[in-house]
Formats: sequence, C-alpha cells, structure tokens
Amino acid sequence: MSTHCDLLITNVNLATMQKDSHQAYGAIYDGCLAVKEGKILFAGKAEEQDFAPKNAIDGNHRWLTPGLIDCHTHLVYGGNRAQEFEKRLQGVSYEEISKQGGGINSTVTATRAASEQALLDSATKRARRLMLEGVTTIEVKSGYGLDLNTELRMLDVTKQLEHALPVNVVSTFLGAHTVPPEYKDASDDYVSLICDKIMPAVAAQGIASFVDVFCEGIGFSPAQSEKIFQAAARNDLKIKAHVEQLSDLKGAALAAKYHAVSVDHLEYLNPEDILALSAANTVAVMLPGAFYFLNEKQLPPINALREAGVPMAVATDLNPGSSPLASLLTAMNMACTLFKLTPEEALAGATRHGAQALALDNKGQLAAGFDADFCLWDIEHPAELSYGINLVKPDDVWIGGEHVHLHP
Amino acid sequence: MSTHCDLLITNVNLATMQKDSHQAYGAIYDGCLAVKEGKILFAGKAEEQDFAPKNAIDGNHRWLTPGLIDCHTHLVYGGNRAQEFEKRLQGVSYEEISKQGGGINSTVTATRAASEQALLDSATKRARRLMLEGVTTIEVKSGYGLDLNTELRMLDVTKQLEHALPVNVVSTFLGAHTVPPEYKDASDDYVSLICDKIMPAVAAQGIASFVDVFCEGIGFSPAQSEKIFQAAARNDLKIKAHVEQLSDLKGAALAAKYHAVSVDHLEYLNPEDILALSAANTVAVMLPGAFYFLNEKQLPPINALREAGVPMAVATDLNPGSSPLASLLTAMNMACTLFKLTPEEALAGATRHGAQALALDNKGQLAAGFDADFCLWDIEHPAELSYGINLVKPDDVWIGGEHVHLHP
Ligand SMILES: [Zn+2]
Ligand SMILES: [Zn+2]
Repeated sequence: MSTHCDLLITNVNLATMQKDSHQAYGAIYDGCLAVKEGKILFAGKAEEQDFAPKNAIDGNHRWLTPGLIDCHTHLVYGGNRAQEFEKRLQGVSYEEISKQGGGINSTVTATRAASEQALLDSATKRARRLMLEGVTTIEVKSGYGLDLNTELRMLDVTKQLEHALPVNVVSTFLGAHTVPPEYKDASDDYVSLICDKIMPAVAAQGIASFVDVFCEGIGFSPAQSEKIFQAAARNDLKIKAHVEQLSDLKGAALAAKYHAVSVDHLEYLNPEDILALSAANTVAVMLPGAFYFLNEKQLPPINALREAGVPMAVATDLNPGSSPLASLLTAMNMACTLFKLTPEEALAGATRHGAQALALDNKGQLAAGFDADFCLWDIEHPAELSYGINLVKPDDVWIGGEHVHLHP
Repeated sequence: MSTHCDLLITNVNLATMQKDSHQAYGAIYDGCLAVKEGKILFAGKAEEQDFAPKNAIDGNHRWLTPGLIDCHTHLVYGGNRAQEFEKRLQGVSYEEISKQGGGINSTVTATRAASEQALLDSATKRARRLMLEGVTTIEVKSGYGLDLNTELRMLDVTKQLEHALPVNVVSTFLGAHTVPPEYKDASDDYVSLICDKIMPAVAAQGIASFVDVFCEGIGFSPAQSEKIFQAAARNDLKIKAHVEQLSDLKGAALAAKYHAVSVDHLEYLNPEDILALSAANTVAVMLPGAFYFLNEKQLPPINALREAGVPMAVATDLNPGSSPLASLLTAMNMACTLFKLTPEEALAGATRHGAQALALDNKGQLAAGFDADFCLWDIEHPAELSYGINLVKPDDVWIGGEHVHLHP
C-alpha cells in the first residue's frame, strides 16, 4: 500500500543536518525525500518506503540540503556607500568622510528620504541575490530610520518582501542601531524614545519578531542596552544583540541574562562569558563578512565556543557599510577560511543553527515534520558548499514544497 | 547623412577605461556606443553623432564597461579539493594530507585520469560562473598534466572551451607548475623534458600563446626558470611567470630580463626590483584570492608599484587548491579590501591591464577600433563593481558585438 505525497525526490544524497545524527552532515546516501502539504513527510533511505507521488524527480546522485537561512542582514536601506568605499581607498580619512556626511548617517539620510517602493525595489534585488544561492529564509533588521515613521516603514517594507519574493522573512526591530544625529548629545533620550514610543508601536503592529541592540562604545552602553532588553520583554518581543564586535563590554552575558535567542559578532567575547550563553541556550552568530571588510584581526573564540557546545550560526550581515556581502555561501567560505570553522559547522551555521538563531523550530533540517524548504546541488560532497567562492549554485530550490522560479 | 552600424546603445554612461583619459574610469556621461562588424565604431558623447543602427538599445542611464578579462586562471582540472579543505579545517596536518596523496599531486592524478570530455565539461561550468559576472576573456594555464600527453590534452580542452562558450580564451603552457612525482628527485631532468620535448610539441601545435613558470622554493629555481624562459624564446612563445608569492627569489627581475608580458603574485617582491618591471613594460598581476585562501600576511608592494607606474592587473587565479575563486568581481573587491587598490585600479586591473597582461592590444577599453566586448550594468557609479560581493551582475554582455546568452 503506497503513501500519497505531493513531491518525491529519489536517487539523491541528503545532507539532513539533523541534530542527533552520528553521520557528518547528517548524511543519508542514496536516499529519498517526500513532501506533503508543504512539509517534509519523509527523509531517509529509499528502500524503506513506497510512495505514490504527484510529482517525481530523479536526483541523479546529487545532494539535497535544507534551504539556507541568512539569520542576520540589514538589507533594507536607501542609497549605497560605494563612493565612500572609494574615498577611503583614495586615502580620505574617516573623519573627513564623516564630516562630509558619510558613514552610517548617510544611509540613515538616504533611507529616510527613500519612498517605500524604492526601498522595496532595492531590497528585493538584494534578497534575490541571496536566493539565487539557495537562501530560503532571511532575517532583516530595521535601524536606518531611527525615528518612528521610518523604522515602521522599514519594517513594513520587510513584511512586503515576503510577498514580492517566494521567501520566508523574519523581521527585527533595531532602533538601537546608532544614535541618530538629532539625539547626538542625548542618547538616553533616544533610548527612551525607542522604549516608550517606537517599540510599543512596532509591537502593536505585530511587524517584528525580535528586538536587537548594537551594544558597543560607538553604539549603546550596557546600561542602555539593558533598558531596551527590559522593554522588549514588556512588549513580548524576542531578543538579539550585536555584542563584542569591537570591544568587550560584556554585552553577550547581559543579553543572555535576558534570554537572548542569539548574540552576534563576538570577536572580543571573553571565553569566560561563554558559560552564560550555554546556560541560556543562546546561539552565537558568526559574521565573518564584517570581519573581512573591516580588516579586523581579532578572531571570535571559536574553539571555546565549540568546546562549550554553543551553537554557531553563520550569516552575511549584508549591509551597505561594514558588510556589502550578498552571498551566504561566501560567508560560509569566510567562516572556514578566516574563522576556521569546518565546512560542516559552516553549513550547520547556515541551516540548523541559523534556524535556531531565528527561533524557527521547523526549519533548517531535512526531517519529517520540518518545512519543505530545500536545495538540490550538483556536487559530490557537501564540503563543496564552503570550499570555494562562486563555484556552485543550487540547481533547484523549493520553499514550503513549492519549486522556486527566480529568473535572473 | 547618418552612419550605418550594427548596434547602437544610447542614453548610457561609459566607463571607457581609456588609458589617456583625464576622467576617473575614462568616464563619459550621457554617451553612446556604436558597433560595426564586431568592433567598436564609436564610444563618446551622444550629441556628436548621427547613427543609423540595425539594432538600437536604450541604456536607461546604466553603465557600460569593457568586458572583464580574467588574465590568470587554472580552470581546466580534474577532481576538486573540497575534502582536503575540510580535512585541513578538521586539524589534519599538511604533511598527513600530502602523505594521503593530497595537495597539487591529487589534482595531477585526477587530471591525468580524466577524459577530455570530463575536463571540458567541468571547465565549461567554471568558465560560465566567470562569464555570468561579465567576463569575456579568460586566460587558462595547463600544468596539472606534467607529462606530454596530459599537458597537450589540457591545452586542447582549453582551445575547445572557446567553441563550447561564447568567450575569448588565451592559452598558457605551464609545464613548470610543479615537479611531477616521477621526477621527484630529478627536477632538472623534468625541466629538460619541458624544454626539449613538451614545449616544442606545444609550439608546433600552436595551442598556447604563453609559457609560464612557478618560480619558488617549492616550484622551480631561478636557474631552472631561466632555462624555460630561453626555451620559450626559441619557440617564439611569450612569457609569464609566477614569482615572489612565498619568498623573494628575484624571479620578477629575471622574468623581466626575458621580456615577460606579466609577472604574477608578487607578495614578496622587493621594491628595488620594480625598476626592472617598468623598463620591460611588464604587467604586475595581483592575485588576492590566493592571498585570502592561504591566509597570507605579506602584502605586495602596491604603493611602490603604483608610484612606478607599473600597470597592475587583477585576476582570480581560479584553481582547486590555493584559490577556488570563480568570481573576478570578488577578486576586484579583494584587491581593494585586502591590497588597498582603489576601485578604479581594480576595474582597470580587470579590463585594460588584464588585456595588457595577455598582450591583447584590442581589448579592455571602450574606444573606436577596439573589439566590441562590453557589459551593461544597472549601477549608479562604477565603484559599485568593486564595493561589494555578489551584489551586482551585468544585465547584458556582448562579445565581438554579439549579445551573449548564458542560461543559468
Ligand atoms: Zn549587523
Ligand atoms: Zn596561478
């Protein structure tokens, strides 16, 4: 008696990335994958099953992986900073560029000035670049508006992205990205604006799942960050935090105290603070793109995180200033080449742990009951996904069991 | 009286990259470009001309650049080294990997074992990855055969690549890539084999334009390199050389003495030797991909090369070991981010100077009489080509005046 299903892919190797597998990559060779009603019905050895599929595909010995998850981006923004990049390389100092209105403030100005449609169009282009590499879920942060209307507009554009493209979008409110020019000498007042006015409005509209803070000398102090975490808890929003990117302010431990789902960057994390992450089951998000573009030297404490069993995600940090990187596969390569993750850790970082960093329990693994988001790759071994840059792209991608068509 | 032409693109900005322009990028705003019989007939301000085109395109304020030129690749090879990459990151030592048959010898073994069709198929895939980013000319080196038959087979595959894809291919004989296992303790004998047997056969078949040598402690000594340069001269083949990548053996000055068209890598080049490059009009080819993948720290003497006016090209070095990088745009970003070239220098490196590194006088610039190889980009400024990774791709590409169709 055969089991009905919508889609069956046979003759395929599965990098299931299942948490409890004893195989590298959770690999199942010569397996098959069955989909029903947008969910994975079966992922395992072919011989065990007898399916009656509406649609059957011969995998031809290729590999299936979970759809890739980019759990940290800032891809909604106005303008770009290419000419600032050029000026810096021509020898113009940061001070001079800042005086000329450059840096993050130029993106804030351009984003405030941009129409909703212009923001959506440029964000759609960037999301497509990610998707052509197999990304099926994208987190997007606000944080270039820094006022009530523009923050809401950014989050609204993020919501629309999910309708413009066949992609899963997770939305994060990052009002505390930088202190806006109009609060230059009154950052506490800006924190109050975030906590008392913008965040409640965001929560009321239900357009963000997370609250995020840039806890850094050039961002927000631990005391200010804590106020924002407390407001997030009051508004029933989950917590993420940019911490220890440029210095050790103990932001990771503070965020963990407030049950942060993830802490991101971590170059200056003191290994002593890893215990707090383990205790809170917080994901450590590696962002090697920013490390690369900023020519940083300080590496995150990878070995200590690995030994402590802290789940490490990998993301692009796609943003116009410190990481204009629209390639999660390249971020995976950088995680290996620069941070010395293994290719298996890099792929887990862009699948299972990326899902965990977004509190998505049904994504990031090929297993029965998980969402049917997956990619088919013409490779001989899953290490190839992290090994090179721009060498491989998925042959086909499915989201919620639907085949994705992305014309270039 | 209007001038007939095959193709006219109007309403377009031109980054002509012309050598003698006083504008950054040789830029011409609101220009047009006319093509006739595969050559550029006109590239300049629109108002000056009156064309009667067979085919007209509205550039819609986008940018035209010369087709990109990747002047240093090793993209014909068998196998891949993804699992070696993985082993290294799992902590297996170089010695152990070498004992297990890894390293360049594993690629030699796989290439010798591969059929001509298999080599062509995999090389075609990789060349397509480059072409989707606007590359219209690719140099390819032999050097994974290291015996008469396989070196000839590699060069033959390289020639076939030009028929498999709409791309210009330049072929380089790199018999002196590494000493093959069967000559392990007799490298001078292998040099004799190259000079007396393989190179004459390559020259007789007319399947290479250049001879290249890996002059390095782990490659060939300066004395051996000199013998190969002398043989190249006898066989009327132009010279390139891999020099000063890992140590300063004075290979650049030696190659320049033999009128090398280019010297490549150059991390350990002593600035004193730059005079020899200037005198010989030799191009310095920057390969930041290998620098990145090998986690190198020693930067090539960019400032000194710039001050001496040595033309700097930028290439991928696409190869399975030290640079699995199938993206010339990413190499341009790395040239800026890691080597501190300006975006204009990076684009010149992938156009005008790339052409010069291949002795192609009719490529790499948008100017009357040049080959009609060019790309149309939806960007606001040419610095955007170097600014990010995977953010932009050309909307359209033409080679010899023909529109390129590359289905993904
Ligand atoms: Zn970020
Ligand atoms: Zn090379």
